[in-house]
Amino acid sequence: MTGAFRHRHLISIEDLDPSDVMQILDAADAFFAVNVRPVRKVPTLRGKTIINLFYEASTRTRTSFELAGKRLSADVVNVAAQSSSVSKGETLLDTCKTLQAMHPDVLVMRHSASGAAHYVASRVDCSVVNAGDGAHEHPTQALLDAFTIRRARGRLEGLKIAICGDITHSRVARSDALLFNMFGAEVRFCAPRTLMPRDAGSLGVKVFDRLEPALEGADVIYLLRIQLERLAGAAIPTLREYARTFGVSERHLALAAEKAIVMHPGPMNRGVEINPALADSSRSSVLDQVEAGVAVRMAVLYLMVSGQGAESVREAAREA
Amino acid sequence: MTGAFRHRHLISIEDLDPSDVMQILDAADAFFAVNVRPVRKVPTLRGKTIINLFYEASTRTRTSFELAGKRLSADVVNVAAQSSSVSKGETLLDTCKTLQAMHPDVLVMRHSASGAAHYVASRVDCSVVNAGDGAHEHPTQALLDAFTIRRARGRLEGLKIAICGDITHSRVARSDALLFNMFGAEVRFCAPRTLMPRDAGSLGVKVFDRLEPALEGADVIYLLRIQLERLAGAAIPTLREYARTFGVSERHLALAAEKAIVMHPGPMNRGVEINPALADSSRSSVLDQVEAGVAVRMAVLYLMVSGQGAESVREAAREA
Amino acid sequence: MTGAFRHRHLISIEDLDPSDVMQILDAADAFFAVNVRPVRKVPTLRGKTIINLFYEASTRTRTSFELAGKRLSADVVNVAAQSSSVSKGETLLDTCKTLQAMHPDVLVMRHSASGAAHYVASRVDCSVVNAGDGAHEHPTQALLDAFTIRRARGRLEGLKIAICGDITHSRVARSDALLFNMFGAEVRFCAPRTLMPRDAGSLGVKVFDRLEPALEGADVIYLLRIQLERLAGAAIPTLREYARTFGVSERHLALAAEKAIVMHPGPMNRGVEINPALADSSRSSVLDQVEAGVAVRMAVLYLMVSGQGAESVREAAREA
Repeated sequence: MTGAFRHRHLISIEDLDPSDVMQILDAADAFFAVNVRPVRKVPTLRGKTIINLFYEASTRTRTSFELAGKRLSADVVNVAAQSSSVSKGETLLDTCKTLQAMHPDVLVMRHSASGAAHYVASRVDCSVVNAGDGAHEHPTQALLDAFTIRRARGRLEGLKIAICGDITHSRVARSDALLFNMFGAEVRFCAPRTLMPRDAGSLGVKVFDRLEPALEGADVIYLLRIQLERLAGAAIPTLREYARTFGVSERHLALAAEKAIVMHPGPMNRGVEINPALADSSRSSVLDQVEAGVAVRMAVLYLMVSGQGAESVREAAREA
Repeated sequence: MTGAFRHRHLISIEDLDPSDVMQILDAADAFFAVNVRPVRKVPTLRGKTIINLFYEASTRTRTSFELAGKRLSADVVNVAAQSSSVSKGETLLDTCKTLQAMHPDVLVMRHSASGAAHYVASRVDCSVVNAGDGAHEHPTQALLDAFTIRRARGRLEGLKIAICGDITHSRVARSDALLFNMFGAEVRFCAPRTLMPRDAGSLGVKVFDRLEPALEGADVIYLLRIQLERLAGAAIPTLREYARTFGVSERHLALAAEKAIVMHPGPMNRGVEINPALADSSRSSVLDQVEAGVAVRMAVLYLMVSGQGAESVREAAREA
Repeated sequence: MTGAFRHRHLISIEDLDPSDVMQILDAADAFFAVNVRPVRKVPTLRGKTIINLFYEASTRTRTSFELAGKRLSADVVNVAAQSSSVSKGETLLDTCKTLQAMHPDVLVMRHSASGAAHYVASRVDCSVVNAGDGAHEHPTQALLDAFTIRRARGRLEGLKIAICGDITHSRVARSDALLFNMFGAEVRFCAPRTLMPRDAGSLGVKVFDRLEPALEGADVIYLLRIQLERLAGAAIPTLREYARTFGVSERHLALAAEKAIVMHPGPMNRGVEINPALADSSRSSVLDQVEAGVAVRMAVLYLMVSGQGAESVREAAREA
């Protein structure tokens, strides 16, 4: 947990060990404080360049990385791949190598293909942060989720965390399970069978196809977005049917642990996977997750680019 | 006119009193000078964050706010809601609360629904600036219009201001009328009956359905854009017909006051509501309005975020 | 080559003389070094404003100008004209005059119409940089190409430069030919007859309709992108046919000069105009071109905005 951060890229939670995660979360603690100061900015990464390369539309993740970079005083450039050379048939690698030739320090990328960030990272000189690759991983989401749970409950170890919804298509479920398992949480996956991957068990999670047993004693109820386009694929019958059998509302809290919190990576489908009253209740940590996101991404960018360890962060966060 | 600015949000001209307006216009005077200096930037809002959330396409307003923020040294992030979570079905309020959780100081928002900014402002912690909500209001446009008229004519009081065009769908007409009335101008609305709201009289304006009497003695001729999509709605017969009966050209200046100026919020339909020669004439204040826009928005952002009054602005504008 | 840069705009290579070009390339040398330093930023253009107005989608050029501006500490604003007032029918000139009224120092513009940048430059107060106007010119591309060749080969004079592909629709071919000719290179155009402009000879180039003689002894093989939409126009039969007759691969290097380099303005169609192995070979300068692009654009922006000459640049590049 001391010394320089040892990773050049952040592609997958699988690449991290517990001390890496703690280094990031501890650094995020310091930057979390920066974000509520009157002057929400430190000069730490002045003269560094971050490129956000997004092949899928995103508000929260792109904005979160953009703000994280700017509050570290880095120059941040957004590339929305829809309106770019990509539409002219350029390969992913050529686009990334082109951007790398402009000497960014970090390329933050989201892509619809699993493995895209890994593929690029092994072929470019700059750091790569995976901001979501298909149904594979979304490591900064898992880190901000861990940060949120640690702030709310003080620890991850021994917590029962029920992740409910479209597990099959969720990079969040996968990254979360890997991270929470690493810290000795009991991770439960709950989904209709059509939305549960066959190899879910291999992730070391408990598998449920009904909500009630999955929520029994849960410390964290983590709801995933139902993507409306899944309806066409007939993976679920109707939204109303899904809401009736897998939608979570305040009454489900009675099943859960006493101080259980409710989380969601957003954007929420109110009235589908999450009841509006629950989303707005005091048990909802949804906005805490967003707040944590900026701090965690500042930590990741800082550790990667500065080559420093978390013990240097308090100094870095102080120099306002 | 002294002391801290007393509003946390800027939603509607109706919320302002004359001293609020004067505080903004006086602050804008100082920032107007910043924008023509060799170094067009002051460190005033360093470490502050402004998010531009635009649900409707915009060049001039979004660019104007973005430049205003950057010239105050704030971090500015643009969110174009077309390419965002919004398209994924997230509610307006969830999007805004998500952005608020990232600790912006100001959320500048444009939305097609009247009342959207008000709705959000009453539910988030950060400041909200309405950059246009449906056909309701566009307060910074009215403020920059007042600034432009004050610079051109020295005052608003007693001026005859003829606002001509599609009044029904114009948030500009509404905000302008409220502001100009507040300072004792005589506001005239002129439109074909199909484009004149029934309750126009309740705004305290004089209503005309022919151009000539409306322009008689006018100090300001303010032309509104005809939105081409109105044609489909049959509110006006043809563009040519509209141009013939409501288009203004240099010959109309003979009806107006001696030093009458011509204004337009842009983008102009040349040859429809405004004759090209008039748009480019020395009587046109169209580009003065754009120039004023950056200064007025710097003033609004400064007063809201700094918690200072206009008397502090000269100092703030000096610290280059 | 000493004294202030004498151009307010950069529209066409035709406007430059050799000493102008050398002034830019020498300045670019200094900024090239900035881009590989740990702190890739100088305070030179702090308080200046650059607006990127792009009427055509672009990743590399827009990103390159944006980074160039930011690394000079200017405020940079992007306007993508698709999502703007333009779609509301505003004229090009009104859009540009509107932006100019916000007091940018430089308007960088790309437009599909030949002559668009020239038209605007003669009518606005700020500097205009042509970032591509139809099939006419793309002067910063030619400058970065010259920079790349000068770094690789030490000079332009006497080099044989074969530009191959869709010459008719290429602003790059035109700007490159003008610049390389100015320095005494032998420029060769090589294309199928349907993609060769009739007046190619008037540019002072040698014209070829077969690859092999064009590449004979070439020091630089410059490949142009085949735009897939040309297929519909039947200018070329099929991509496979084009690749077979005009695609360049490593075996063609045997025809060229000993240290010949391969260039491409990007985005590349691998397997069409350029063989993948060649694109990735040690002879490829494609990424060097991209790297040069940021430095050359920093030089252009610096010289235009600062009003200084290249001899001041080392100082400007030092002040990190």
